[in-house]
Amino acid sequence: MHKGRLEAFSDGVIAIIITIMVLELKLPEKGHDTFADICGLYPVFLSYILSFVYVGIYWNNHHHTMQAVKSVNGAILWANMHLLFWLSMVPFATAWMGENHFSKWPVVLYGCVLIMNAAAYTILITALLRHHGKDSLLARAIGKDWKGKVSLAIYAAAIIISLFCPYPWIGCVLYTVVACIWFIPDRRIERKIVHDEHPN
Amino acid sequence: MHKGRLEAFSDGVIAIIITIMVLELKLPEKGHDTFADICGLYPVFLSYILSFVYVGIYWNNHHHTMQAVKSVNGAILWANMHLLFWLSMVPFATAWMGENHFSKWPVVLYGCVLIMNAAAYTILITALLRHHGKDSLLARAIGKDWKGKVSLAIYAAAIIISLFCPYPWIGCVLYTVVACIWFIPDRRIERKIVHDEHPN
Amino acid sequence: MHKGRLEAFSDGVIAIIITIMVLELKLPEKGHDTFADICGLYPVFLSYILSFVYVGIYWNNHHHTMQAVKSVNGAILWANMHLLFWLSMVPFATAWMGENHFSKWPVVLYGCVLIMNAAAYTILITALLRHHGKDSLLARAIGKDWKGKVSLAIYAAAIIISLFCPYPWIGCVLYTVVACIWFIPDRRIERKIVHDEHPN
Amino acid sequence: MHKGRLEAFSDGVIAIIITIMVLELKLPEKGHDTFADICGLYPVFLSYILSFVYVGIYWNNHHHTMQAVKSVNGAILWANMHLLFWLSMVPFATAWMGENHFSKWPVVLYGCVLIMNAAAYTILITALLRHHGKDSLLARAIGKDWKGKVSLAIYAAAIIISLFCPYPWIGCVLYTVVACIWFIPDRRIERKIVHDEHPN
Repeated sequence: MHKGRLEAFSDGVIAIIITIMVLELKLPEKGHDTFADICGLYPVFLSYILSFVYVGIYWNNHHHTMQAVKSVNGAILWANMHLLFWLSMVPFATAWMGENHFSKWPVVLYGCVLIMNAAAYTILITALLRHHGKDSLLARAIGKDWKGKVSLAIYAAAIIISLFCPYPWIGCVLYTVVACIWFIPDRRIERKIVHDEHPN
Repeated sequence: MHKGRLEAFSDGVIAIIITIMVLELKLPEKGHDTFADICGLYPVFLSYILSFVYVGIYWNNHHHTMQAVKSVNGAILWANMHLLFWLSMVPFATAWMGENHFSKWPVVLYGCVLIMNAAAYTILITALLRHHGKDSLLARAIGKDWKGKVSLAIYAAAIIISLFCPYPWIGCVLYTVVACIWFIPDRRIERKIVHDEHPN
Repeated sequence: MHKGRLEAFSDGVIAIIITIMVLELKLPEKGHDTFADICGLYPVFLSYILSFVYVGIYWNNHHHTMQAVKSVNGAILWANMHLLFWLSMVPFATAWMGENHFSKWPVVLYGCVLIMNAAAYTILITALLRHHGKDSLLARAIGKDWKGKVSLAIYAAAIIISLFCPYPWIGCVLYTVVACIWFIPDRRIERKIVHDEHPN
Repeated sequence: MHKGRLEAFSDGVIAIIITIMVLELKLPEKGHDTFADICGLYPVFLSYILSFVYVGIYWNNHHHTMQAVKSVNGAILWANMHLLFWLSMVPFATAWMGENHFSKWPVVLYGCVLIMNAAAYTILITALLRHHGKDSLLARAIGKDWKGKVSLAIYAAAIIISLFCPYPWIGCVLYTVVACIWFIPDRRIERKIVHDEHPN
């Protein structure tokens, strides 16, 4: 089975997710057209930036991973749908967090959605590795995946802090830290592809 | 006529349908940011998962079927548009069912939309078979289509139960059963393609 | 300049237009979950079907026309954007017409949007013909375009009738007639392509 | 790294941005179905046209620029995401400006979003030039970019005028002037490509 249509469908869904988030940036109420009205939207705007970067990171890594993929099977198709499902939860969690100015439960929910996304991505990678074998280009490119493990630890810490600390926005700071870790696209795969195609 | 643009257009529409459903996951009212508020959304969330899986199944089967297709004609184009029309009804039925906590008429409507989708898919397959001939790879791959017939029977049973039984959510359990039957992508076609291309 | 990305972008926009129309199918108010509630939506639903068919026709014809196109230039890009602009007005006109149960001005507005779409399509064809020359495959395939002229006449009649007749829904019947005329994809082009590629 | 998926993803996002803007064209209130009601929407409609043209211009220029691009790297991917982020702000600024009939702060915000888009496009071009080298086809095609510089000057003038002049809609006139400057797709690149491929 070819990977082309899987890539195209994923691109479509991710493009829509990243774009409809902006629909949650609700206009100030009718007749409110001052500088203060637009400034009052800053928590919604900050949440939107964070989520835009997160979805962008997922698209970037998806793009990189798929470049090392040769073909797909039914399990991979569903692992990919599962990832898209949790990505589609991001706009909802973003809007709730922004509207409630980073209060406790919205920040926790946002963290849970991020954890589910990370888990779904790991499942997708696992399905890809099982299909391609342990000696594949993909397997060597992924390596130990310390980034993934560190991210999970920070997400968990952020959720616990948001639950028990009086300043739940600290969780958002940690989410931002993870985003910074991932900001640089996965050079491991890029380097491996170049290296394997031109071994000298 | 080439099948490429038909696939791309269908992918686009299905990607949008699956993604805008999440827009129906309305935020709790302003200022409601507790754990209880988010838990109160569980019927909407369950409906969303069910519909996400259904649309995913249709995309999966569409993908598989199109792999065995060589070319398309006007009748196939319109049979495909007809299927997309009924798929586009899924978000509406999902939202109504979720908002009303699986009450009678919303569950019945949801079942009707699923039946119309199944019928539209059958019409598309029929148009494809008429275009490709009875001895085509596609025809042999489809075979008897017992899955399609069983699904229709269960849908009909679910609608009748929802109409007359005091617990209409039983209909949703049956819809979930059908989703499980289809969950595994249509291996018949996959196997046939492999077999026909490498007969030994 | 290649036509590929123009086709992909148009497909994307048309796919979104056809799909977001369903977002205008607003749910009955909270707590309204009876058969009567869903039946009360019939004018919105009928408008939706009509518009779905219209946008489908435009996609179909766009698809057919582009198959006979070799390359594009700046004028064609903008003629295409102009067509997409008027197509993007269809969901708005549809929703207004459905919500007001086919009353006078909404039916007139819908007709105006259809006329602008027809004009935009004619402009696109003109730009394509100027780029490809009078003896091109495209020029011979388009021919006299009697369908386009008949459509314009019927649209104009429908608008006048809606303005002055006490039953403005008659305009919608005429819009449906035009949809039926176009329902069959433009076989002229299909036949010409086949004929030119296999002249015997 | 290939440019194909970057183009496809950008096309998807831009197609969605341009199309969801129409969702901001809110229907007149229930029961309002007269000619006056629809005329009352003219500021929203004018803002929509202006933004449709702007997003169309960005798509056109993106399309042209990418034709001269050979490959992409991580920095280009993120520069592209950054541009898409600011494009995704256009629907919000458009809706706010239209709803408030071109009053002061909405017009200023719209100008700021346009400036950020122009800056993001310049960053993307810079990342592309760094990757392709100063003697590349792209570098020669871009040239001095006087259009970009003139646009920035006019945007800045428009914002200052809107802030201090009693008629902030003058800013919109200036935004329209910039749109007219860019309306013609970037022939420099088109000409250069043709020239370099057929030097005589």
